[in-house]
Amino acid sequence: MNRKILIGVMGPGAGASEVDRKNAYELGKLIAQEGWVLLTGGRNMGVMDAANQGAKAANGLTVGILPTDSDRGISDAVDIAIFTDMGSARNNINVLSSDVVIACGMGTGTASEVALALKANKSVILLSEHPESQQFFKSLSAARVSIVQTPVDAIAIVKDLLS
Amino acid sequence: MNRKILIGVMGPGAGASEVDRKNAYELGKLIAQEGWVLLTGGRNMGVMDAANQGAKAANGLTVGILPTDSDRGISDAVDIAIFTDMGSARNNINVLSSDVVIACGMGTGTASEVALALKANKSVILLSEHPESQQFFKSLSAARVSIVQTPVDAIAIVKDLLS
Amino acid sequence: MNRKILIGVMGPGAGASEVDRKNAYELGKLIAQEGWVLLTGGRNMGVMDAANQGAKAANGLTVGILPTDSDRGISDAVDIAIFTDMGSARNNINVLSSDVVIACGMGTGTASEVALALKANKSVILLSEHPESQQFFKSLSAARVSIVQTPVDAIAIVKDLLS
Amino acid sequence: MNRKILIGVMGPGAGASEVDRKNAYELGKLIAQEGWVLLTGGRNMGVMDAANQGAKAANGLTVGILPTDSDRGISDAVDIAIFTDMGSARNNINVLSSDVVIACGMGTGTASEVALALKANKSVILLSEHPESQQFFKSLSAARVSIVQTPVDAIAIVKDLLS
Repeated sequence: MNRKILIGVMGPGAGASEVDRKNAYELGKLIAQEGWVLLTGGRNMGVMDAANQGAKAANGLTVGILPTDSDRGISDAVDIAIFTDMGSARNNINVLSSDVVIACGMGTGTASEVALALKANKSVILLSEHPESQQFFKSLSAARVSIVQTPVDAIAIVKDLLS
Repeated sequence: MNRKILIGVMGPGAGASEVDRKNAYELGKLIAQEGWVLLTGGRNMGVMDAANQGAKAANGLTVGILPTDSDRGISDAVDIAIFTDMGSARNNINVLSSDVVIACGMGTGTASEVALALKANKSVILLSEHPESQQFFKSLSAARVSIVQTPVDAIAIVKDLLS
Repeated sequence: MNRKILIGVMGPGAGASEVDRKNAYELGKLIAQEGWVLLTGGRNMGVMDAANQGAKAANGLTVGILPTDSDRGISDAVDIAIFTDMGSARNNINVLSSDVVIACGMGTGTASEVALALKANKSVILLSEHPESQQFFKSLSAARVSIVQTPVDAIAIVKDLLS
Repeated sequence: MNRKILIGVMGPGAGASEVDRKNAYELGKLIAQEGWVLLTGGRNMGVMDAANQGAKAANGLTVGILPTDSDRGISDAVDIAIFTDMGSARNNINVLSSDVVIACGMGTGTASEVALALKANKSVILLSEHPESQQFFKSLSAARVSIVQTPVDAIAIVKDLLS
């Protein structure tokens, strides 16, 4: 089996904070350094773009699952572009294709991805300063939601989940 | 323009409580009495089935957007079955096709629908005893989330939103 | 079981000929007269619009499965609008949700629908003056493809398939 | 821009002939030797599996867009697995994500992919002994359909289209 490990980093686009983007860049770099493939929503903004830039800075391989049918608006740090033309319905593909999902920051799109990941029995790591989301997703699935404070902690949990 | 008003009722399947099912039945009945079309996920369990049974008890018209490719597992109170064969990705179709979304109860699938509805700038009415979900979705979008205690209150807000 | 029979009429939008549109109008009218629900791609052009207009002229019920996320470009003769925001991927939903598929005219989108219908083991009726499509689809599935010359003949075959 | 070139090889699964599989293996090998990424439907049978095996024999990178939600039935020569859980609706993603589509052999699924590719204004290369498909797709779009007899000829046309 050649199948590579894909780690999904989900987070806000236009609504990302500077902390979210810094964390996403660091997550992308650490994922690449572990030899894993980074999967994101592929757009040229916010968490998606920052994670891809971080992964490429560490010579990683990056996959973007785009909501559109063409490369307008794509992050220039995406290697493999999957064009779905499905809008937010592609969020389900994002989580099904990720061995582990890391949510970096929070917003409506990210919330849908965390919920869809839990629906599909995926483990989710929340890296977010947003207390309501921690309480809500813990209430939905205490066993499969981990809460972390730093990218390094997130990667430690991914390693644990994959082993 | 012949287009009818579709009101979506989203909620847990197997995980629905008795209160959820009772509320869903009542919502279905009230929606039908207003002359609106009921839209659900179409399955023969939980909130989906109860809402459809309520709507048919009041001679309403019901649409089910199924995750499957055939009518195995469909509620027998669905009039118009749309087979997507898309699993949970069909949740986005549910909310895009609803003029207003009512979440009756809470679970991972329902949470994804509320989040996708807010992402698409839809108004969402939460009828749920689940305080973490109220706080979380209010934190995502205070303006477009309404919290109600009864089906009658939900319908009053729908009327207000449609006018 | 309340589930109604849905008959799909698929055909070109902007590329429809006058004969295609006339046949589609007649098909919509005959489908409504049989008490079946008409399903189309829902747009305000070509075969989709003509079939919906025909069905409404006979007081039928019409379902449109739109490629978009909103009602811009929708036929005003659609009663139940399902917004997929999935572009041409919605063609698979069109055929899975139709008890029988009638292709009225031919084009790239229609060809994809006929192929997807055959892939899903659906019966397809071709009403088209396009000899290459008859030969091609017959070569893919001789048993499940019927070729007809008139809307009346198409409806006769639908009745036969449903019985 | 880091985006890599993806070449899609589409063809029958269980229904593939020995010639189809031999051609697919050769296509996969040649695509890898050009430094392009191979994209297929990802399953462990027919043209999909053969193309992936050929690409890996030449140390290529392979992407599989699966109809399922998990790796049951996946080709062991897929590097990057995208799980759509969308059945045949994923065929539209296959073609939108391919810079050029090569159809190797013919069947109902492959026919839907060729039609969807033409609908999306993609160029399609037909490598098939099936005269009805050549005539049909040429009749749909003479300008964007190329017919070839060998994998080497297919690759020559891809190079031409990309330049």
